[in-house]
Amino acid sequence: MIALSLIGIGTGNPDHLTMQARRAMNEADLILLPRKGEAKADLLDLRRGICAQVLERPVRVVEFDLPVRATHGDYLEAVNDWHDAIARAWAREIARNLPQGGRLALLVWGDPSLYDSTLRIAARLQDDGMDLKIEVVPGITSIQALTAAHAIALNRLAEPLVVTTGRQLREGGWPTGTNVVVVMLDGGCAFETLEAEGIEIWWGAYLGMEQEALIHGLLSQVGARIVTARKALRERHGWIMDTYLMHRNVNDKTGAGGAS
Amino acid sequence: MIALSLIGIGTGNPDHLTMQARRAMNEADLILLPRKGEAKADLLDLRRGICAQVLERPVRVVEFDLPVRATHGDYLEAVNDWHDAIARAWAREIARNLPQGGRLALLVWGDPSLYDSTLRIAARLQDDGMDLKIEVVPGITSIQALTAAHAIALNRLAEPLVVTTGRQLREGGWPTGTNVVVVMLDGGCAFETLEAEGIEIWWGAYLGMEQEALIHGLLSQVGARIVTARKALRERHGWIMDTYLMHRNVNDKTGAGGAS
Repeated sequence: MIALSLIGIGTGNPDHLTMQARRAMNEADLILLPRKGEAKADLLDLRRGICAQVLERPVRVVEFDLPVRATHGDYLEAVNDWHDAIARAWAREIARNLPQGGRLALLVWGDPSLYDSTLRIAARLQDDGMDLKIEVVPGITSIQALTAAHAIALNRLAEPLVVTTGRQLREGGWPTGTNVVVVMLDGGCAFETLEAEGIEIWWGAYLGMEQEALIHGLLSQVGARIVTARKALRERHGWIMDTYLMHRNVNDKTGAGGAS
Repeated sequence: MIALSLIGIGTGNPDHLTMQARRAMNEADLILLPRKGEAKADLLDLRRGICAQVLERPVRVVEFDLPVRATHGDYLEAVNDWHDAIARAWAREIARNLPQGGRLALLVWGDPSLYDSTLRIAARLQDDGMDLKIEVVPGITSIQALTAAHAIALNRLAEPLVVTTGRQLREGGWPTGTNVVVVMLDGGCAFETLEAEGIEIWWGAYLGMEQEALIHGLLSQVGARIVTARKALRERHGWIMDTYLMHRNVNDKTGAGGAS
């Protein structure tokens, strides 16, 4: 039997780790770290650094090459194929490093529940007949790192909020029924497709890390600056992870927004 | 000058605390703990317990009576009046306990950014002229404790999600444009107002605590059980905090939901 811990580690700041995460890492027999290629070597280094800092006993840490997602063809199909390939890679590493079973830990960026694929990949292994018991350890998400860095509330008083992806925002525009939108997984700057009038944006990249960059203002005034900053940062660091919160209609008809 | 740390402490499980939260607590000159009356004495005890467990130096911990929100009249007006009253209570405790300024810490359930009023209350003190520097330390929310306990992803593949309140769900029904809804601050069981057909629910109360209770299933099959369990638990413990995630249309037209 494999006891799999999916451990949310926050956004790269070792201080984001919870006591529960530290304990789960120390109780593991094996920690698997994914190698994502040269461009994202920083992310591997951060995980290595967290292991070095947190582990108080000789837990085995093994690195493996993460399969690459196809960038052509249908998006959802490409994602599903990619998850299949990752499941096979996990199965290989488990067979090689835990042939008798044991406790496996994976360090998940942010929280395993939010726009992360590890739970779906683990379900594939169960479907394939692996005796896998899954435990989830929650972690600080980039949304929380964003709102903390800006010292801003995520929701407006008594109002709902939408969490969505750059792709959805680009294809569907501003979500109906809400004045508050958080955008994740935006490979470009999908906010450029919106009518900027009346929108306030809080943007952050490399949240919680040394390279952290923040921009806040009316979208009409800071939108272009975010696009430029994002491009420059991506070139400098070789990769970028960013997220943003937007509020619309500060003086909207509900009368609640911004009233506090 | 007052340096105010709003520290997210998770949902009552001391293991939810991050390293950043522990550090911020230990660096404080004063920690204020709100007393919310007999019925919620458990919550005060949890905060006291966290202080006792985490503090490694003699930080002053002062308890104060939290004003009570009016339950009659307009909801938003009552909330705003209540926040005003809390701001006055904070100002009194600061004047009394930190007359020369210093580092004040408040322990916030969950994360200070999500359906929490401390940021709004702190803004009132700034508006009143207090020299207040605000730092936010993110914490595990009840949403994350819920998804971790059920070992379930919050979002569906590439889809958006809505976070809303019991009041909004009751008044507005299922939010448009999404198949995934998280409900917080539900004083009743607002899901009862929905057409249950095709909805799956993951419910949790006292998340992360010893009393944790979880129910999962089709809403049509477990809805009544949740209502009964919630009532019994509330009677037994004198208070309840619960939250739930719902998915709709597992076989919907996007074809993405549940495909993994």
